[in-house]
Amino acid sequence: MRDFSANHDWLSINTATIRKQAGAEVPLDRLIDQCAAAGVRAISPWRDQVAAVGLDKVAAQLKALGIGLSGYCRGGFFPAPDAAGLKAALEDNRRAIDEAKTLNAACLVLVVGALPGALNGKAAYTDLARARTEVRDGIAASLEYAREVGMPLAIEPLHPMQAADRACINTLEQSLDLCDELDAQQSGMLGVALDVYHTWWDPKLAQQIARAGDAKNTRLLAYHVCDWLTPTRDLLNDRGMMGDGVIELKKIRGWVEAAGFAGFSEVEIFSSLDWWQRSGEETLATCIERHRSVV
Amino acid sequence: MRDFSANHDWLSINTATIRKQAGAEVPLDRLIDQCAAAGVRAISPWRDQVAAVGLDKVAAQLKALGIGLSGYCRGGFFPAPDAAGLKAALEDNRRAIDEAKTLNAACLVLVVGALPGALNGKAAYTDLARARTEVRDGIAASLEYAREVGMPLAIEPLHPMQAADRACINTLEQSLDLCDELDAQQSGMLGVALDVYHTWWDPKLAQQIARAGDAKNTRLLAYHVCDWLTPTRDLLNDRGMMGDGVIELKKIRGWVEAAGFAGFSEVEIFSSLDWWQRSGEETLATCIERHRSVV
Repeated sequence: MRDFSANHDWLSINTATIRKQAGAEVPLDRLIDQCAAAGVRAISPWRDQVAAVGLDKVAAQLKALGIGLSGYCRGGFFPAPDAAGLKAALEDNRRAIDEAKTLNAACLVLVVGALPGALNGKAAYTDLARARTEVRDGIAASLEYAREVGMPLAIEPLHPMQAADRACINTLEQSLDLCDELDAQQSGMLGVALDVYHTWWDPKLAQQIARAGDAKNTRLLAYHVCDWLTPTRDLLNDRGMMGDGVIELKKIRGWVEAAGFAGFSEVEIFSSLDWWQRSGEETLATCIERHRSVV
Repeated sequence: MRDFSANHDWLSINTATIRKQAGAEVPLDRLIDQCAAAGVRAISPWRDQVAAVGLDKVAAQLKALGIGLSGYCRGGFFPAPDAAGLKAALEDNRRAIDEAKTLNAACLVLVVGALPGALNGKAAYTDLARARTEVRDGIAASLEYAREVGMPLAIEPLHPMQAADRACINTLEQSLDLCDELDAQQSGMLGVALDVYHTWWDPKLAQQIARAGDAKNTRLLAYHVCDWLTPTRDLLNDRGMMGDGVIELKKIRGWVEAAGFAGFSEVEIFSSLDWWQRSGEETLATCIERHRSVV
């Protein structure tokens, strides 16, 4: 297992972590400058943040600063109540793949979607198996284009508490089953973004991580860290800083590295009650300190 | 699949559903009278509610009214930071088994516990595998006594969002693996309480329910219903009334009955924001109507 204690060379910042500072939204170009000032070598930005600043401008800024992308957030949301919706989702994913390529991301992260409409409080249908079929078909179609372009797709299993509204792929096992089905040859173009927040509870986690690969070829394309707080006060925006919760971070990273993952450890914290109320500098400094001590 | 549309013979009320009415706690003897008045044939009460009224008094009231127990809530909470804590948990579970027997419950439901102390915000340890081992050992020890007394134990897999603080058994597969390990002979003394709220999201749900048994012998000892709301505003107390959310209740009951379950459909709704603010009569009438129409 790599030693993270001496520096933060393998730290990436998912820009959701600092997108709000002192309660206010901060534009991506400013976030990137803050990361550069903190010596952060990689980030993972969100599409809306990139669009607000401008794709080419962001690409140029990253290049000038020598900052890479451990991933790009996000494609997915494949299910829809009708054919037009399914088609629109595929087109949107194609655009996301293009953007990821322009930014030279390590992968496009897929939050696959779930019951269409549920995120707005009214599911258009409740047939979970149908949603999962639409997700499989959507990934299969997007993968064709991703292969052409050369942009790996990373399925992110989301916590089961988000199965209705955000992602109906909810375990690593389910993700890997899908990878095996759609990319049996293990081409490297389809894999998994493993976030400890979503998966730490899984009794099959160690077993399934081991299944994901080895040093020669791994399905693990991204690794996200934060922590699970007790109590957790919100289903979406109450993630903890690494070390402040109960997730066994070093143990899980050991499993992940043994399964061939050698990339960045990406901090992704949604925290409306705590970290989004602080300054970006304080949050970044804490990420760096915890990366070296507890990740 | 049984037809529930003509009556509510197979409805059970978990007394948590009506324990608060118009925002105020209501004692169990009053709840039992309300259930009797509504023609409810079975309930599942909680130990603290029973203790507040008195075990023998509750047993006599239930007998006089001809109301049975689809389950008794709850044993479990086995993990502890030290030997004294582990021993105390076993003793407490022995008492719970005795109470369940006095009340002639169909089973004692086990909410098995997780990281000790996490429920109060400070985990004594974070080794999830250790907690799971302590749970296994605790169930094994309790099962010996349960066999003597003749009180089936029903492991309740809890939603992964409660893995830190309430139960580190989080899938039906994990529950059945434990049943196979501890009761290979399928004696009927160890099984599962399947709650749709905790398990509806599971991509292996249908497969694992099918594994649970058949008409001759099933591991399914209890079946709990409510609904998953979108959005869900609280991790514990925002469960929905059947039909108000996205869970495919009839589909799941079909699977459950095909796997040999022929008991009560028990309504368990924790709802601080909605149903606990209403009258018990309104909540019970709605449970009955939904039991007949959507469960």
